Amino acid sequence: MARIVQKYGGTSVGDTDRIKNVARRIKAMRDQGHELVVVVSARSGVTNELIARAKAVCEFPSERELDMLLATGEQETIALTAMALNGIGVDAVSYTGAQAGIFTDKFHTKAKIKTINAKPIEKDLKLGKVVIVAGFQGINDDGQITTLGRGGSDLTAIALAAALHADKCEIYTDVDGVYTADPRVVKTARMLPEISYDEMLELASLGSKVMQTRSVEFAKKYGVIFEVRSSFNQNPGTIVKEEVAYMEKVVVRGVAVDKDQAKVIVSNVPDKPGSAAKVFRALSDSNINVDMIVQNVGQQGVATLTFTVPQTETARAVRSLEPVLAGLGGGQVAVHEQIAKLSVVGVGMKTHSGVAATLFQALADAGINIELISTSEIKISIVIDQARADEAARVAHTAFQLDKV
Amino acid sequence: MARIVQKYGGTSVGDTDRIKNVARRIKAMRDQGHELVVVVSARSGVTNELIARAKAVCEFPSERELDMLLATGEQETIALTAMALNGIGVDAVSYTGAQAGIFTDKFHTKAKIKTINAKPIEKDLKLGKVVIVAGFQGINDDGQITTLGRGGSDLTAIALAAALHADKCEIYTDVDGVYTADPRVVKTARMLPEISYDEMLELASLGSKVMQTRSVEFAKKYGVIFEVRSSFNQNPGTIVKEEVAYMEKVVVRGVAVDKDQAKVIVSNVPDKPGSAAKVFRALSDSNINVDMIVQNVGQQGVATLTFTVPQTETARAVRSLEPVLAGLGGGQVAVHEQIAKLSVVGVGMKTHSGVAATLFQALADAGINIELISTSEIKISIVIDQARADEAARVAHTAFQLDKV
Repeated sequence: MARIVQKYGGTSVGDTDRIKNVARRIKAMRDQGHELVVVVSARSGVTNELIARAKAVCEFPSERELDMLLATGEQETIALTAMALNGIGVDAVSYTGAQAGIFTDKFHTKAKIKTINAKPIEKDLKLGKVVIVAGFQGINDDGQITTLGRGGSDLTAIALAAALHADKCEIYTDVDGVYTADPRVVKTARMLPEISYDEMLELASLGSKVMQTRSVEFAKKYGVIFEVRSSFNQNPGTIVKEEVAYMEKVVVRGVAVDKDQAKVIVSNVPDKPGSAAKVFRALSDSNINVDMIVQNVGQQGVATLTFTVPQTETARAVRSLEPVLAGLGGGQVAVHEQIAKLSVVGVGMKTHSGVAATLFQALADAGINIELISTSEIKISIVIDQARADEAARVAHTAFQLDKV
Repeated sequence: MARIVQKYGGTSVGDTDRIKNVARRIKAMRDQGHELVVVVSARSGVTNELIARAKAVCEFPSERELDMLLATGEQETIALTAMALNGIGVDAVSYTGAQAGIFTDKFHTKAKIKTINAKPIEKDLKLGKVVIVAGFQGINDDGQITTLGRGGSDLTAIALAAALHADKCEIYTDVDGVYTADPRVVKTARMLPEISYDEMLELASLGSKVMQTRSVEFAKKYGVIFEVRSSFNQNPGTIVKEEVAYMEKVVVRGVAVDKDQAKVIVSNVPDKPGSAAKVFRALSDSNINVDMIVQNVGQQGVATLTFTVPQTETARAVRSLEPVLAGLGGGQVAVHEQIAKLSVVGVGMKTHSGVAATLFQALADAGINIELISTSEIKISIVIDQARADEAARVAHTAFQLDKV
C-alpha cells in the first residue's frame, strides 16, 4: 500500500463525462489498496468565463474579489469529482484549499504557500476515504481566500505530497510526458522515462509548457519525486527527481525551441561605468522579463547590448529605454522579432567539454547562422533565424544522438 | 445614518447587467450615509445548472457534496457584486457564509442557523465598507460548508439583521410587496403597506410565495422588522412587524387561494378509539403533509374523515392508507382533485365575531358551495370547487371591503 497524490488538470476534468472517467481511474487505483489524495483544477474554460463576467461588471476588479470568484471553479470540480466517486461506490470527500489547511501569504492572485496543516486530510485517509482537494487555492492568516497563480494546481499537488510524505506524486495532463524535443517538429523525439529537477527546470523555463518552473523548484526544494503522465491513457510518463541514472555518454537530455522571443539591440551606448545597469534597471522597473544578455564593447568608447525579451513586451521595452538612452547621451534601439531561441539541456554537460563545439559544428554544417550565444552549467542557448528553427532542432537532436535509446 | 441589511434574490442578480443595476441601488443608499450589509442569492438558474451536473455524475449525490457544490453559486455572486460596487467607486468587500460567521447545525442541505459571530462584519462596517454576504450558506462546527434549504437567503438577511441590530431589513424581490389578494385574479387587490408577522405567516403558508414561513418565524422570534419590496422600481413595499396600526373595522387583511391541494375522503371507517390516529400516523410515516382535517361521525358506528393533501402526494396518500383500512376492518378512500382552498387572514378576527358568517353569507349569495371548513385564531379556510375559486376570491375580497383603503 502506497500513499499517492494525484493531480488532474482542467482538460482532464473538462466536463461531467471526463470527471466520471477520472473517477474510474481513481477507483482502479484505490482498489489496489492505495491511500489517495487527488488535486483537481477548474473545468477547462471555467476560469476564462468567470474572468469575462468579472470584466463585464468592473474594468479592473480587485485581486481579493477575483480570488473569491475564481476559487468557485475548483470548488465545483471537487464536489463533482467526489460525487462521481460516491456514485461508483468509492468513499470520497472534497476539501477546499482552506479546509485542506493550505495557508498562504497575503498576496492575492499570486499567493505563495507558507505552510500546510495536513491533519484533517490525514484523519480522512485513516478512515479509508479518498480525499479530493481543490487546486490553485489557499487561505491567508486573515481567513481570506487566495489563489496561487499560474500552475497553481501542480503546486498544490507537490506541496501536499511533501506535507503528507507521499510515496508518489502523479501529475496527470494532456501530454504523455517530457520528450527529448517537440515530437511535432522532431519526428525521432523520444519520451524520457526520467529527468532531473534541474533539467526539467531549464526545459520548463524554455517553454516546453508541461509545468511551471515554480512547481518544479518546490519539488526540488522538498525532494518530492513526481511523474508527469497522461490522463487519457495508461502509459507510464516521465519521472522527475534529483539524480537520474543514465549512461556516461548522455550529456544532453533534450532540445527546446522558443519562438516567442524577440531580440533587442541597443547600439552605440557610451561605454561608461553604470550604463548597462541603467538600461536593465529601466527594463526591470517596467517589469519586463529579460532573458539572454550579451554585451560587446566596440570601438571609440561605445558598446552594444543585445538581449531577448518576450515578443509581447517588445514595444514596452523600447518605450522604457528611450529616456535612459537620452540620459546617457546616445544610443539606438533596434528590434528583431523573426528569431528563435534553441537550447540544449543536460546535467551531463557539467562534466563534459565539447558540447558547445558539437552544437556549433552541427549547425555550421547545416549552414545555420548563430546570432547570440549564452551558456549556463547545464544549458547552452543560441539565437537563430526563426525560419530555420525547426531544422536546427532536428540537427541538434541528431548531433547529440537523442534519437537513440 | 441607519444600519440597513438588504437582500437581493436570484432574479435581481440574474446576469451581469442586473448585478450592475443592484450595485447602483446600493450606491444610492450608501451615498445617503447608511451602513449597508447586502445578502445576495445565486444568479437565477445557476442552482439548477449545478444540480443537473451533479445528477450527471451521480444519481444520488451526498448532501455534503451538494452543499459544497451549491455554495459556489452565491460565492460567484458576492464577488461580482463587490466588483461592480468597486467599479463605481464604492468600497465593498465580499463574505462567504463561513467568513460572515454564520454557524449552523450539522444537517446538510437544510441546516439551521445556530449563532452568528458578527465581529468581522462590524469591523468592516466601521471601516466604511459595504459588506456583501453570500445568502443560503453557513458553516458547521466541523468546518463543513452547509446550506440552509429553501428560502435560505431571506433567512440569512433576517438573521444578520438580528445579529447586527440593524435599523432596517429590506427583502428585495420581483414582486412589489404583499397584496390583499392575488392581483392577477382580483383586479381591485391593494398592496398592504403593513402586515403583522402572524398574518404574513398564514399568507406564506397559504402559497402567497413571497417568502418561506421559516424566515418570517425567525423574524417574529427575534423581532426583526423587515420590508418586502421590488428591486426593479423605487416604490416602498410591505413592512412586516409585530403590531400593525389599523382601524378597528379591518378584521381581514387578505384573501389567499391555493389550487394545488386535493381532498381525500375516507368513509365508513369503524368508529373505534384510535382509528383516526392510525390513519394519520400512516400518512405521517409516509411524510405526507396533511392540512385541513374534518371528522364527522355518522350512523351505525362508522365515521368519515376528510382532509386535504398536496395534489402531488395524492397517490402516495391513497397507497399508504390501504393497509390501515384493511387493519381497521373497513372503509373506502375517495379523492377529489378539482378543489381549491380559500383562506381569509387577519389578526383582527381574534376580537371580531361574525367573520365566518360574513364569508359564508357572501359565498352563499354567489351560489358557491362550501365543502369543508377549518378555522384558526387568525384564519378561516374553506374548500370549494376549483372552477369557482377566482370568483370566490373576488366575492370575499369585496365582502371584507379589502378594495377600500
